[in-house]
Order: sequence, then C-alpha cells, then structure tokens
Amino acid sequence: MAKELKDLTKRSEDYSKWYNELVVKADLAESADVRGCMVIKPYGYAIWERIQQSLDARFKETGVQNVYFPMLIPKSFLSKEAEHVEGFAKECAVVTHYRLKANEEGDGVVVDPAARLEEELIIRPTSETTIWNTYRKWIHSWRDLPLCCNQWCNVMRWEMRTRLFLRTSEFLWQEGHTAHATREEAEERARQMLDVYADFAKDVLAIPVVRGVKSETERFAGALDTYTIEAMMQDGKALQSGTSHFLGQNFGKAFNVQFINKENKPEFAWATSWGVSTRLMGALIMTHSDDNGLVLPPHLAPIQVVMVPIYKGKDDLSALDKVFDELAATFKQMGIRVKYDNADNKRPGFKFADYELKGVPVRLVMGSKDLQNGTIELMRRDTLEKETLPLEGIAAHVGKLLEEIQTNLYTKAKQRLDSHIWECNDYAEFKERIKQGGFYLCPWDGTAETEAQIKADTQATIRCVPYGYSQENLGNDMVSGKPAVCRVVVARSY
Amino acid sequence: MAKELKDLTKRSEDYSKWYNELVVKADLAESADVRGCMVIKPYGYAIWERIQQSLDARFKETGVQNVYFPMLIPKSFLSKEAEHVEGFAKECAVVTHYRLKANEEGDGVVVDPAARLEEELIIRPTSETTIWNTYRKWIHSWRDLPLCCNQWCNVMRWEMRTRLFLRTSEFLWQEGHTAHATREEAEERARQMLDVYADFAKDVLAIPVVRGVKSETERFAGALDTYTIEAMMQDGKALQSGTSHFLGQNFGKAFNVQFINKENKPEFAWATSWGVSTRLMGALIMTHSDDNGLVLPPHLAPIQVVMVPIYKGKDDLSALDKVFDELAATFKQMGIRVKYDNADNKRPGFKFADYELKGVPVRLVMGSKDLQNGTIELMRRDTLEKETLPLEGIAAHVGKLLEEIQTNLYTKAKQRLDSHIWECNDYAEFKERIKQGGFYLCPWDGTAETEAQIKADTQATIRCVPYGYSQENLGNDMVSGKPAVCRVVVARSY
Repeated sequence: MAKELKDLTKRSEDYSKWYNELVVKADLAESADVRGCMVIKPYGYAIWERIQQSLDARFKETGVQNVYFPMLIPKSFLSKEAEHVEGFAKECAVVTHYRLKANEEGDGVVVDPAARLEEELIIRPTSETTIWNTYRKWIHSWRDLPLCCNQWCNVMRWEMRTRLFLRTSEFLWQEGHTAHATREEAEERARQMLDVYADFAKDVLAIPVVRGVKSETERFAGALDTYTIEAMMQDGKALQSGTSHFLGQNFGKAFNVQFINKENKPEFAWATSWGVSTRLMGALIMTHSDDNGLVLPPHLAPIQVVMVPIYKGKDDLSALDKVFDELAATFKQMGIRVKYDNADNKRPGFKFADYELKGVPVRLVMGSKDLQNGTIELMRRDTLEKETLPLEGIAAHVGKLLEEIQTNLYTKAKQRLDSHIWECNDYAEFKERIKQGGFYLCPWDGTAETEAQIKADTQATIRCVPYGYSQENLGNDMVSGKPAVCRVVVARSY
Repeated sequence: MAKELKDLTKRSEDYSKWYNELVVKADLAESADVRGCMVIKPYGYAIWERIQQSLDARFKETGVQNVYFPMLIPKSFLSKEAEHVEGFAKECAVVTHYRLKANEEGDGVVVDPAARLEEELIIRPTSETTIWNTYRKWIHSWRDLPLCCNQWCNVMRWEMRTRLFLRTSEFLWQEGHTAHATREEAEERARQMLDVYADFAKDVLAIPVVRGVKSETERFAGALDTYTIEAMMQDGKALQSGTSHFLGQNFGKAFNVQFINKENKPEFAWATSWGVSTRLMGALIMTHSDDNGLVLPPHLAPIQVVMVPIYKGKDDLSALDKVFDELAATFKQMGIRVKYDNADNKRPGFKFADYELKGVPVRLVMGSKDLQNGTIELMRRDTLEKETLPLEGIAAHVGKLLEEIQTNLYTKAKQRLDSHIWECNDYAEFKERIKQGGFYLCPWDGTAETEAQIKADTQATIRCVPYGYSQENLGNDMVSGKPAVCRVVVARSY
C-alpha cells in the first residue's frame, strides 16, 4: 500500500501527468460529476482555508469589509460595459427556467416550459456589474468613499479544457471591489492589493513572484490597467497567481455611480477590483513539490508536525503515548499544528509514505529503543533528511526548524526564478530557448501585432512589464526591429 | 439625521414592518437586483462571519472536515431518490445553456442556441445527491467510516414570496453530510448535531430553543427523521432555526454506496445531513431587538464596546484620544472587540443613534468634564440604562457587564418562551388562542389528516414532538377526538 501511494510519475518523465496524479493522490481534489468542475477534498480544503484566513486578515488590516452579493446576474447587466461583455459573455452558464416537473412521457423530471424566466440570468463569472449596480445606491457623497468590499465566493466560467485547480469551470475565489473619490487613490489601492498578494505569496506560500503590469491585450475586460503577480513553476512556465485592476471610471459610468465631490460637483466614482482563486493551490503544488509528493511551507501547512510511534505491544504503545501526548501539548502551546497518529489499522511505513505525499513539513518517530535512549528521529520534508536527536529540547528545535524550512523553500524557489530569467534581444535565439521554459526579458515595441506574432510563433505571451528589472538601454523590439518602448517578461504559461 | 435613523416603526404597530425596516436601517442586508435574492451588507456579513466561525469550530471539535462540492447538479441526480425529487424539483434554477452571443437584431447579448447543454444542470438546492454520488467513490470498507464532511456555500431554491434573511431564493448556509457503518451511529450523529445547534443558539445567540422531532409531513424530503430546533419570536411565532436529518439508507441505496462491514458483507451506508442558514440572522433579530433597533448578544457582536468622545476643540480631543486609546488597548488585551469612533464628520448624537440601531452591547462616552472628574458614562444596550462610573476599573467592569448582558438576554428570551408555551387540549380554545401567538402543547393522534385540518383552520403547523416536555396523560387528539399518540408543539411560524 505504501508503495502504491508513492507510485507517482516522476516530474522529469511527464510534469503534467505528475501534477494531475499528485492532486488526486495527496487527497487535494478530484474531478466532479459535472464536466469541468471539481470536488475539493478535506485535505485540499484545509489548505484553502488557511489561504483564506491569512489573506482575509491582511485585507481587513487595509480597511476592507466582507459582503455577499447574489450569484445570479441579469443578462442585461453584462452588456452595460462594452469591453466587459466581450470578455465574459462567451463563457457563461445561463439560467433560463426556475422549475422542473415530472416527465409525463417517462421517468424522471423535465424542465417545465411554463417556468421560463422573462430575462435570463447568468451565474457570475465575476461581480463588477452587479456590485456597481448596487454601489449606485450606496454612494452619494465623497464622505461615502472609499468603499472597500470583498467577497469570498464561487464563480463560473464555462471552460472547454480544464485541469484541477488551474482551470475549472466553477472555482472559489475572493473578489475585492473598491470605489474611490479620486483617480490617484484608486490607482494606489490597485497597487496596494497587488503588494498584499505578493507579500502573502512570499511570507505564507514561500512563492517568489514577478510583479508588473499587463499589456493591453492581456488586461481584464473593462480595466485601464491590470497589475499581476507571475510565479515561475518548476518547468519554467509562468502561472498568473493574482491580479488587481484599476478600472478607471468605466463601471462608474456604465452603472451611473456618481458622488458629490469636495467641490460640490457630481463626479463618477473610480474603481478597482482584485482577486485570487483556488488557482493558488496549483501554484503552491508546482512550486515546491517533488517526486515523493506535496511539499508544504510550514506557515501554510494544516499539519506542521506529524508524530508516529513504532511499537510492538500495548505496553510499548502506552509508554510512547505518554511521551508523545506531552510533546503534543508542548507544540500546541507553542502554536504549532501537530498531529499524533497512533492509529493501529495502518503500518508505520504506510503512514510515512502518506504524510510524505501530503507534504507535512516535519515528521517525528519514536520506537522503544529511542525511548530507552532518550532520542527521537526527525525527518524534514523539504530535504528528506533524517537525523536522530535527543528528546530533550526537541520542541524548541522543531520550532526553529519550521522557520528554517519556510526560509529554505522560499530561497530555493527564488534561486530558481532568478536563474531562469534572462535578457533576450534576439528573436531567433528566443524561439529556440523558450522551448526549455523560463522567463525572457525582451524589448517590445508596444504593439499588439508583435505580441500576437510571438504568441503565434511560440505559444509564449507577454506576462507583464515587470517591476524591479531594468528598463534602460531598451534597444529594438526583437520581432519588429522597431524601437522598443519597454522590456517585458515573455513566457509560456498555465 | 439621528432622528431619521431612529424613525423605525414600533413593534406594537406592525411587527412585520418593523423587521423589514430594521434589517435595512441597521445596514444588515437589502434586496438585490435579482428577484428574491439579497445583498448582505458589511455589518450584516460581519455578524454572519461570527456565526460561521463559532459553528465551524464546534463542528470541527466533533470530527467534521470541510470540503467543497460543485454548485451545479445534473438534473438526473435529483430524481434518483424518490421523495427528494418531490421536495426539491419544483423550485430549481435550471441552467440550460453555456454561452451568450451578440444580438444580431439589436443591442446587447442573447443566449446562443447552439450552446445548449445535453443535460440540464440545476443550481444546488441542497447537495445530498451530488455528495452521495461522490461518496460511492470514497467509501469501500467500514474502515472508511464514519465520513463527516461539511461545506459552507450558497444554495438556491426559487421562492415566490421572499423576505430578507427569512426566505430568499439564494441563501448562504452550511450543510453537513455524514456516512456511517451502522444505523445507531447515524442516528446518534443526527441528534448530536442538533445539540451542537441548540448549544450554539443558547451560548452565542442567546436564543432558547425547543428541540424535537418533526412529523412525517414536515420532514426533509428523503429523511426518516428530521430533528429540529424551534425558536419563539417576540410575536409568538415559531422560527425553525436548524435541522438535522437521519436519512437512513435512502441515499446509500439511491447512489449505490456500499461498504464491506466488519462481518465482511456488503452493506449500504447510513446517512445524516444537517444545516443552518442565514435564516439565523432573522431569528437573532426577532428574538432580542427592540423599537430602537438591533440588540446583539455580546458573544456574537462584531463590536462589543463602542467608545465616543465628546469634545469642542482639538486640545479636548487629543486629551480624550489619549485616554480612549489606552482603554482600547486594555480591551483588546482582554479579547474584547472594541471600536473607538472619534470621526469628526458625524455628531455624537448621530453616533449614539447609529450604534444603538446596530445593537452594540456597551457604549462608553467621555467629555472634558468626565476627564476632569475621572469618570465615564456607560450605556448598556439591552436595558438602555445609563450610569456614570469611575474611569478607574472600567475595563474590568465592562468585561463582567458583557457577560451579564449575555445572560440577561438569554434569560429574558427564556422567560418569554416559557411563559408562552401552554398545554391545550381543546380545539375551540386553541383556535381562539393561536391568534395571539405562542406555542401550544396539544395531544395528537399521529395522522396527517389532523395535521392538515389544523393548518387549514388556523395556518398553524405541528412544529415538532418536543423533548423536555411531558408525554404523559395524553388523552385524546384535540381535533379528531381519537386517542393521542404524543403531545406536539403547534404554532404559527415564519
């Protein structure tokens, strides 16, 4: 059984297959009975809950309040903002009826044709439209601003090709929607939330990201600017992990949200929206995990330390129970999430493989000999290194080690990112090198034509105009040869 | 403005109107743009979040894990359990298409007829069907049991007549779904979760409830037994506040969920499901609130203590700020949720009215004179009593007072419940007395005919066969005159 658990495709053999297997074998999620949707299983959901809690606290620190808006949106709302409808109408789940009835010509139930809605409703793909239609009632004066709301909810975008966590028709996310009295304040909020995402990715997920701004082609439908954090997966592909949009007055105008400004004149409100989703689970898996399974950063892990006894008889076990119970109490006092697994229906080897697969950062094992010697065996998941240590002082040691593992995971990921991001000015070279993955800093002439050309030739896209990388000595666009306006990150992506 | 805030219909004038106004004026929720749906506003959602956190911790203590299942359910799933389909098919939102397209004959977008689903999908009204179809893949042996999952999500039941929180087409809830190896264990779990609900209602919401079991007519569609907690509102009507269902093997059989039992034989799994929803917000409001607005029990209140300074100039304010900031720090250390409102764009009178309307349990006010005298004014929301107290020791006093208010609210509600629940054996008397509200303990012959008769005559229904009330000396059914089989609670309800 332990062997079967571990029977995971190697990353070097087939990275994509490794990912798909890992999600299922580590009990994170599985495909649902409805095409393109997923079931998030208890262990996967426990990780998502920790993501939620950490982000939610960070949002609230910036003055954001949670709310809940309906999941159904009148079809007509979607077409009020011209670009928004282009972006989202194509992939909507549409509710047309509100009743089923017994099938008179056979078994089961059929849609009752008499219960047809006057106006069809769509399941929210994102909620700008319905929220801004309500903000009109909430915003009257500059005193009502800023208004900073967020909701944790499900959304639906009909997808033809789906993958667990990375792209599913229904997914869970948070969407923040803020309204402001000035353009500057809205732009600042959009950038602030990008920083919240980037800091969270670093501090909790141990994922380094490139921050930047999207090209016009890659912008959110209805935004003036889309800010993004892009993470690099182990195969060198980019994964867009969070976006924050400066929406200008587009939704304010589309839904007629006006306020009386300090000069006593009516003005349209300025908007932002920003979101991260269960996609982060995919980023997490593909950043740290290895051929033995999931590797979780300690700050995120639902179980930080697992303790397993090795025993022959009941006396053995009760002696070990005593030591482990005390140790568990100590860990809990230290705020460390610990699990003591003394279940007798699984062998230690099975438990070892299972917790390795599930990415628990630290494993502690004791047998009768350890008990006599006053020792305990420790394994750290990130390096798989084992050592036998004195039992005395083990809790403090583990406390420090968890921080060390957190730092180590981030450092490893940061080194990979830094060593796979290159300047590239020559298109022939680019076309060759992009096959091996990586981020390429390329001079761009700013045109959609060039962008389309790159995509057509290489499947790579402009991920963003990055912050923190030099924008000097741009030279010429590597495709068109025209003078470049900026240096962009080009990469293949999920 | 303070006056306008307070301009709330009196309960004695029109209880129903009072409720509707209060929900909106206290910034809890409002009607959405989609018929029958609601927007839960920041203050209302903050209360709901506290309900969630408290319940979620209680669930987890009993070994429940959170999960997420898709919101869309194939139509055919619904008809697999015969009674279930009867109960839920009539009120379903049905997704028939997955794409919109530009309207060629005018503005906006239309449903793309080419994007019709082969099988219609319904938005979950409850998730037994989709969860049990998945449990088939998760459950193989008695070792896989019990399986105890819960999800916090939105559900949809198309309602013709809706009221904020009490009955909306979309609402938020939690639904727990457990699978067990034996009938006894499943029945015990169903009753255990009812106790979790009742204890939570008492300890956090300060709402006393009658526990009991539903009559066959009032059972959940597909259950063998539905356990319920029934709360009494101030107008004497019942509000069903949480239910827990023993589902027998109905879903195990409908979805072929079999496991190998300890005797090595295949057996269908035994099931429970249980849920509470945003309806609890309605119960909360109608149990404690008064003509001045919301009254929140301290254990639940997002803000337990609000502090307001009264000042003339900047010097005044900065002296008061200093004292209040220290006090706020002390409260926070004590784990008390405090808000210091020194905003200068609203007058104290407005603030007083607003926090009263929002039900903040304790208000502390200081002016310059207080500062000189070392005193502070305290108002408790439950009794509206004001007193001037020494500043020294105020934090400890407030700490105790919050517990006192919590107890007082529960005691008041319990006294009302106890003094409005009567034995009644005579139908003529019942028909007269039910008009004034209240719970009536009536002898029942156990037939659906009698139950229907009572409903037709009086709009009252059998709420439950209650626990904790005498089932001796039953006598005869008050309607049919036949020998009674039990004494039931009959009441009008929300």
